Amino acid sequence: MITSQRNPRVAAAKKLRRSRVRRETGRTTIEGPFLLEEAVRAGVAVHEAFCLAGDQSSMELCAATGIDTHVVAANVMEGLSETAQPRGPVAVIEIPTAGPIRPVDSIVLWEVADPGNAGTIIRTAAAFGFQVVATVDSVDLWSPKVVRAAVGSHFQVGPIEGAATDPETLSSLGLRLVAMAPDGEVSLREAAADGASLGFIVGNEARGIPASVRQHPAVVTAAISMPGGTESLNAAVTAAIAMYERMQAAQA
Amino acid sequence: MITSQRNPRVAAAKKLRRSRVRRETGRTTIEGPFLLEEAVRAGVAVHEAFCLAGDQSSMELCAATGIDTHVVAANVMEGLSETAQPRGPVAVIEIPTAGPIRPVDSIVLWEVADPGNAGTIIRTAAAFGFQVVATVDSVDLWSPKVVRAAVGSHFQVGPIEGAATDPETLSSLGLRLVAMAPDGEVSLREAAADGASLGFIVGNEARGIPASVRQHPAVVTAAISMPGGTESLNAAVTAAIAMYERMQAAQA
Repeated sequence: MITSQRNPRVAAAKKLRRSRVRRETGRTTIEGPFLLEEAVRAGVAVHEAFCLAGDQSSMELCAATGIDTHVVAANVMEGLSETAQPRGPVAVIEIPTAGPIRPVDSIVLWEVADPGNAGTIIRTAAAFGFQVVATVDSVDLWSPKVVRAAVGSHFQVGPIEGAATDPETLSSLGLRLVAMAPDGEVSLREAAADGASLGFIVGNEARGIPASVRQHPAVVTAAISMPGGTESLNAAVTAAIAMYERMQAAQA
Repeated sequence: MITSQRNPRVAAAKKLRRSRVRRETGRTTIEGPFLLEEAVRAGVAVHEAFCLAGDQSSMELCAATGIDTHVVAANVMEGLSETAQPRGPVAVIEIPTAGPIRPVDSIVLWEVADPGNAGTIIRTAAAFGFQVVATVDSVDLWSPKVVRAAVGSHFQVGPIEGAATDPETLSSLGLRLVAMAPDGEVSLREAAADGASLGFIVGNEARGIPASVRQHPAVVTAAISMPGGTESLNAAVTAAIAMYERMQAAQA
């Protein structure tokens, strides 16, 4: 049993909290039996798992799937975990290689910063069958917080990170870009009826979508009508309504 | 300047973090100039505000609105604040008295537990002009986390807490109850076309809506079709899509 936070394997896993380390190693950590099962089911490479001493069910899960497993003391699990009541298992996985951007209905995260929003968008995209693309300045989609908020949908969606903040490039890949903005020129319903593959752009929580993007000739801006009088919807809510409307238009 | 966390006013404000104390006193705390301005604009009684020493703009805001203001040291503000980088002001407000449940389009939070979800639902309800009703076992809607996630929409929406977990009662108040469930008997679009005032029920994040509610004769269950294959949407996303669809049906 590992009882020290300074154990090299533990220390290496803890470093994966840092975005830079995740990018350098191509690894991240996931927590809890549900995410681990989803990762295994999706064929993701699991390098090792840390189970709390006495957590028989996690140890059985790891044994059944042939994962290299380390039993750790409660204090070590607390160091590895990002949750308030850490139960583990915490597993080190290989971040799946994302494919190229395809010309299919997509949500484009434009500098979205909140991990909860990004995770909820990935979860919703899994439900509606959307591709997820994030620009370089968005939150790291494989951070443990984002993965937790998406409850396993990462493995299904395979979100694509690091896209250029340049409408030209995305447009040339076959996406008709629709920037979601409260003052949009067309209604969401109208935009969603378009026959092309759509890329709904959702902006940063504080700054929205840059004017240079909204005004780009390859971009149409679309609004969700809000009779209540406020002009503000959460980024994940905006993305969800756009995906829902598009899905309804496709089924009509 | 208050430099001790044990100052009686500071100690009393800190106690408002507890749900029980909020209910007993009818008060809560809000944080940041934006929420304070929204509260003042809405005519909410502000009992006092704590401003960080040197935070001239907050002190001017409080002075302009005649709020009893206390200057506090950084360590005191840290104790009062729930955010990572506390800047204040932190204000003690009277929780506005909610009106009775009206027969208008509503979101009913059925044991919704996550503060972020509850706050996002209140924010979305403000945008779409919906009434918000929460059953007794839902998260406390005036907790600082919920208020923060709703970015000021509480003052506009006036959410109603403590509703009975009994479809009969809600139904008798004039709401046609629509329980949002992945296996719903009708589509959301169909349910949203109903002419009556609708009460969309959104369930607990882990348990969903109790079978006794879903099967109640006063309740129809409605599903959001999800071609992506997963059967799971976040509670705030489900509520937002229901409100959006209803708003579109009303405008059609």
